[in-house]
This record gives sequence, C-alpha cells and structure tokens, in this order.
Amino acid sequence: MCKKCDIKKTKGEFSQERREVLSKGRALAALALTSPVWSLADKAYAASELKGLGAMVVTAYGASVAKGKIKAFKVKRRALRDNDVKIKILYAGICHSDIHTINEDWGKNTYPVAPGHEIVGQVTAIGKAVKKHKVGDYVGVGCMVDSCGECENCKADREQNCLKGTSFTYGSPDKVSGGITQGGYSTAVVVQENFVLKIPKGMDISRAAPILCAGITTFSPMQHWDLKKGQEIGVVGVGGLGHMAIKIAVAKGAKVTAFTTSKNKVKEIEKMGAKAVVWNKDDPLMKYMNRFDLMIGTVPYSYDMQKFMNLLKLDATFVNVGMLQSVDSLSGMMMGFGRKSLAGSMIGGIKETQEILDFCAEHKVLPDVEVIKPNEINTAFKRVVGKDVKFRFVIDMNS
Amino acid sequence: MCKKCDIKKTKGEFSQERREVLSKGRALAALALTSPVWSLADKAYAASELKGLGAMVVTAYGASVAKGKIKAFKVKRRALRDNDVKIKILYAGICHSDIHTINEDWGKNTYPVAPGHEIVGQVTAIGKAVKKHKVGDYVGVGCMVDSCGECENCKADREQNCLKGTSFTYGSPDKVSGGITQGGYSTAVVVQENFVLKIPKGMDISRAAPILCAGITTFSPMQHWDLKKGQEIGVVGVGGLGHMAIKIAVAKGAKVTAFTTSKNKVKEIEKMGAKAVVWNKDDPLMKYMNRFDLMIGTVPYSYDMQKFMNLLKLDATFVNVGMLQSVDSLSGMMMGFGRKSLAGSMIGGIKETQEILDFCAEHKVLPDVEVIKPNEINTAFKRVVGKDVKFRFVIDMNS
Repeated sequence: MCKKCDIKKTKGEFSQERREVLSKGRALAALALTSPVWSLADKAYAASELKGLGAMVVTAYGASVAKGKIKAFKVKRRALRDNDVKIKILYAGICHSDIHTINEDWGKNTYPVAPGHEIVGQVTAIGKAVKKHKVGDYVGVGCMVDSCGECENCKADREQNCLKGTSFTYGSPDKVSGGITQGGYSTAVVVQENFVLKIPKGMDISRAAPILCAGITTFSPMQHWDLKKGQEIGVVGVGGLGHMAIKIAVAKGAKVTAFTTSKNKVKEIEKMGAKAVVWNKDDPLMKYMNRFDLMIGTVPYSYDMQKFMNLLKLDATFVNVGMLQSVDSLSGMMMGFGRKSLAGSMIGGIKETQEILDFCAEHKVLPDVEVIKPNEINTAFKRVVGKDVKFRFVIDMNS
Repeated sequence: MCKKCDIKKTKGEFSQERREVLSKGRALAALALTSPVWSLADKAYAASELKGLGAMVVTAYGASVAKGKIKAFKVKRRALRDNDVKIKILYAGICHSDIHTINEDWGKNTYPVAPGHEIVGQVTAIGKAVKKHKVGDYVGVGCMVDSCGECENCKADREQNCLKGTSFTYGSPDKVSGGITQGGYSTAVVVQENFVLKIPKGMDISRAAPILCAGITTFSPMQHWDLKKGQEIGVVGVGGLGHMAIKIAVAKGAKVTAFTTSKNKVKEIEKMGAKAVVWNKDDPLMKYMNRFDLMIGTVPYSYDMQKFMNLLKLDATFVNVGMLQSVDSLSGMMMGFGRKSLAGSMIGGIKETQEILDFCAEHKVLPDVEVIKPNEINTAFKRVVGKDVKFRFVIDMNS
C-alpha cells in the first residue's frame, strides 16, 4: 500500500486502493482460458446461449500479462440471476484507462483481463424480475456493473463511491462469480439491471459507447460545479474525454476554449463549437488570464496543471479527470492568491450517466469515432498513445 | 519568472509574482539608514512627530540581507495625506511569513526590510478627511496597507486581489513614497484609513495582533466554505494559525480535530476546545476517514497533504493556508474517487478582517501569546522554526 493510503477501509471513497483490489482478485484460471483463436465452434456456442438464462463462455479481448498484446481469450458469463440482463455487445469504446490498466500505470492486475467500460449492445435475455429492460432494447454499460445499493452513497446515486466497494466493469473483484470482472472488449456480458443504461431511441448506436465514460466523466463536473449558459470553460487536452467535454459544454451554452498540443485537431475542434483553440505551446497564455469559471483537465499523463490553474477566475476550480497518478508542482502561493481549487472527479453515478445519455440525445451530441475491428485493438492502443485518433476508437464487436 | 507564471499581468490575482514584485522595489537607501542603535535622540524625534501631520523617521526592526539577523534601523513614515492615519505601534505579532520572507523562501527581497503584518496600536494623528478613526482609538493593521479601491475585486471586498496590485504591509512596492513598504516591527506607521481596522472595545490589546493575520487567514476559509455548527473540521498544524483556527472553529460550534507533531501542545489544544488531538505519527488515521466537512492546513513547510485529504468526506475541501511553496505528490486517483478538492486561501479582505476582530470580541476568542521585547526577535524566530511557542510571539514595541 502506498504512503498516500494508510487506511484499508474508507467510508466515503473506494474501500481499497486499486492496486490492492486488483492484487487480491482471485485467479480466473477456472473461468477464463487463454486462447489466441476464437473458433467457429466457440462462436456457435456463444450464440446458442445468448438468449438463454444459463451461463455461457464468450470471447473477450485482453492481455494475459502486463503490457501484453491484446489477444482473444474465453471468459464465462454467469447464468442470469433474477435481476440480471444479458447483453450482446455491439460496440465498445477504447478509453485511455484501458491502456493505463494494461500498462499497470495504476497498479498490478490479475490476468487475463479484458478492458472495456464503454459498452453498447442489445438485450438478449433478462432475469425473471427485471423490470427496466426488455429483450431487444439497445442498452449501455459504463464503468460500473454493481454496488451494494444500500449504503448512503449508493442511495445518494453515488454508486462509484459504494461503501462496500463498487464493482467496476473490469479488473474489479467479481462478487458474484469470483475472480475479477471482465470488460466490454467481449461479445456478451451479464449485468445487474440497475447498472444497465438505456440508449435513447434514435441515437446512432455505433457512436454512443464513448458517452458511457468520456461523456459522463466530463458532464459530471459541469453539473457539480454548475456550469451555466454563457460562462467560460477551458478544456485541457482534446482526446476522447476532451472532445466530449467541448461538445457537452457547447450544448450547455457555455463558451469553450480548448487547449491541445495537436495542431491537426484545430479544425475539428472549431467545428465542435469551441470559440478558441490554443495549440501553440509558445503562445503566451496571458490573454486567457482570469477567463475561466471552470476548467476540466482531461490529459491522461503528468503535466503542468498550475499553468492552467493560473487562468481561472477568483475562487474557480480546475477539475482533473484524466491524470490519476501523482500531481506535482502546484504553487501554494498561486493557488492561495486567487483562492483557486484543484478538484478530482471520476465518472458519475448511474442516474447521472442516464442523464448524459438523454442530454446527448436531446442536444444531438455524439462523439466523433473511428470504428475498428477487434483485431485492430493493438494498433488502436498505439495510436491513442500517439494522439492519433479523432477522437475515440470504437470496436465493432461483430466485425 | 518561474515556469508557473508565464503571465505578467493577471486580472483576478496578484499582478506579478512576489519574487518579481520585490526585486523591482526601488532602493530605500535615501529613506532607511541601517543603524543597530536607536538613540535617545531618535526616540525624542519620533515622539515629537508622532502627533503631527508631517513625515517622521522611526525605528524599525528588520534584516539588511537575506537570512540576516534582525536589527534596528530607521525608516521614514510619510507625511499624512488627507485620508491617512498615523499609528503609534504598541504590539506586533511574529508570523511565520516574516521568517519565510527574511529567508527568501518565497523570492528575493529589497533590503533592508522590516516584517510585521499583525499590528496593533493607537491613533496619534489623522489626515483632515479621515472619518473612520480618531486620535486615541486602538486600531489594527493587517497584511495590506492599500489598494486601488476601484477595481471589481476591491469593490467586492477582495482588496488582497486588487487588479492594480495590492500594497502589502511590508516588502511591497510603496506606491506613495517609493521604495518598499516597511512593516509593523516598528514604532509607528502611516496607513490609509480604509486599511486601518478597529480593535473592539474591551479587547486585550496585547493579544489582539495575531487576529490580523492568523485570525483572518483561518476565519476566511471557514466563511467561504460555510463551516456550520456541528460540522467536523480538521486543523493540520497547531502554531499561530492553527491555534486560531481551532479557537474560531470551536466558537462557531464546529467539532474540531487537531493534528500536531508536538505532543507537548496536546493539553493546551484540548483546553481550546478541540474534541480530538492527533499527535502520534504512528497512530493510524483510519478512524478519521470520511470525517471532515472541511480541513485547514496551516503547516508552513512542505508535507504530505494527500494523507490528510484522504480524511475528507465526499466532495469536501482541504484548504491550504500555510504552505506557499511547491505542493507535490497529490494522488489524482484518490482525489478523483471522492471528488476531493485542494484549495488555496490567503488572508481575507478588509471587511472580513473587521468581521473576525468583532467575532473574536463577541466570542471572547484571543490568541495565546508570549510577549517579547524587540531585542528578543531573533531568538523568537528560532523558536518559531523549532515549534517552541505557545502559540504566537507578540513584540511589545514599547518595552
């Protein structure tokens, strides 16, 4: 356990550090057999079970070692409990978190692990008590698949802070079946109905998946810090999260300034509705001083946050949603003079996730995606790290 | 200019980094002659001018080089303008900032410089337009002596964020007389009436000075983050600021937990009304998890803030008021999971400073002080750094 966390159990936040959670996950040996080849027979087996209530073995794509290549392997999806929903996965977004996880940037994993927490699919079977979804519905699953539902945080729609420990979509202890949860880089998944979101009617399902993480992660701080129409927001980093932040903020009527290191993204960012794009690192930031009512930092690696915090208005907040490692070199003096805050924020609760899906439908906000096949995931990972994607890869699981 | 500040002029915060402000201060050579001895003749001269409107030369105690010993020297106090107040200084508190300044922890100074921004004295003369104070009043001066009074921040009672540059009490460019401002380690000072605070009637003037910095600095975040009766607050570091934070929070009806590294302060802290004192660094912090609605960090040197931020409730804020250097090793993940914030806060506006003076009078809150003579300042500095003071030194300028 690192020096930042000398407590094992914490009311009000995740109960154990990710590192510890993952290292204690039980071996998946009995459930998930590594296999680089997904045979036709396997496909047939999966298909035959897709509509039933029984357990099934399906394909997942993940790594069997740290920093390993993404390969196909088999995972078991549980037999449906009364309130479970079986989903045929159609699309899964590639989030930078998936890469961080495989690279063990955030701690050690139990292997194999299939990433993927931006899932869109179709309901193929439901447990007998399920009321919220029916067979045939287009649905989504985000970063969580279960929580206790009874603690004060769950009751306050903060399932991501479940006091008994949220079950995250992958790499989290699977409290039902043992082992760890396996994510959306897969052909099917079984999820408790309360953690299954409704994809609004008419929404392009090939583009909806990134709303489940990139969308909610950037929408939630705008809600919490109450971004108002006409206010100024700065978005730092324009990848999957950043471009959703821009689109959502524009839809809210805010004035968006985007900060990117990629000159080749400027035209697209302007089309999204940003009123200013700062891409030249030699540009003085002076003219943006005291401009922002809110800033959202989406960059997934260490960077100079203070430089951007200097652009906040008095009393305003920079919300870091992308950089989950060590935050360094803030200026106590600069923060103090303007009473500036640095906040963290991570995804959002289930209720708020449905809200952003509905918001996107209402305001016709959709991510810009590049649809790929499962055998292109490794290339996609490299391109994400190289900032070579506009702006989110989505895996077509049936291609 | 450091990498944190690539902007020279900033609306909404201090216009230049302290380092730059100080380095540009004009030489005081013509005004302040270093002199280790304050002769009887000098005293007589000062006394003869104390009640007049004219300029005068008075004793100040400060350093002539970085990290230098505090010695007496002479400074000129300007002739009274129409809205100026002349104050015979009776008491001046020793703030850790004074030591940081002399040590150049925050940037280079112009020398000589006399510290002191916790000043209590008596009005000896007033300019002809002064309405707020009269001769004989007991008054205070805190960390500021002037601002433009016209910008949006000044009009919003945020003179410490004056868009044209606040004149801080010492080491700041003196816009009236040239050179730099000279602080309260001195026998007299001339200050614009709006920056002169009223010491409430009946308040012990030998103990009031620390309210002007330690008091307002800890009171202001409790006001801004709306600390309520019955809420839990954690105070990290129990020196001058920390002990005032405890007393003020207790007076507000909050439940205070104090964190100190000084076992020998525990009894006094309990007497102040703290319900818990954590002093043993080997004590697990687990039992304080998710306890705090607000935390205030008063420690003036680098420390592990994340360890304390882990104790905040969801969405709560740790306000750093003591550590103005580089803040490092925060955990992006830990902050994100609980939507925790780290904020900076620095002193407070003039209106709020009067409020804390009145609050202290109403609630009978006074700092615990050790009164010393001017020739004991150097020893006091060493004892402050060695955490050997309960809890604030106050210099009796007439002893």
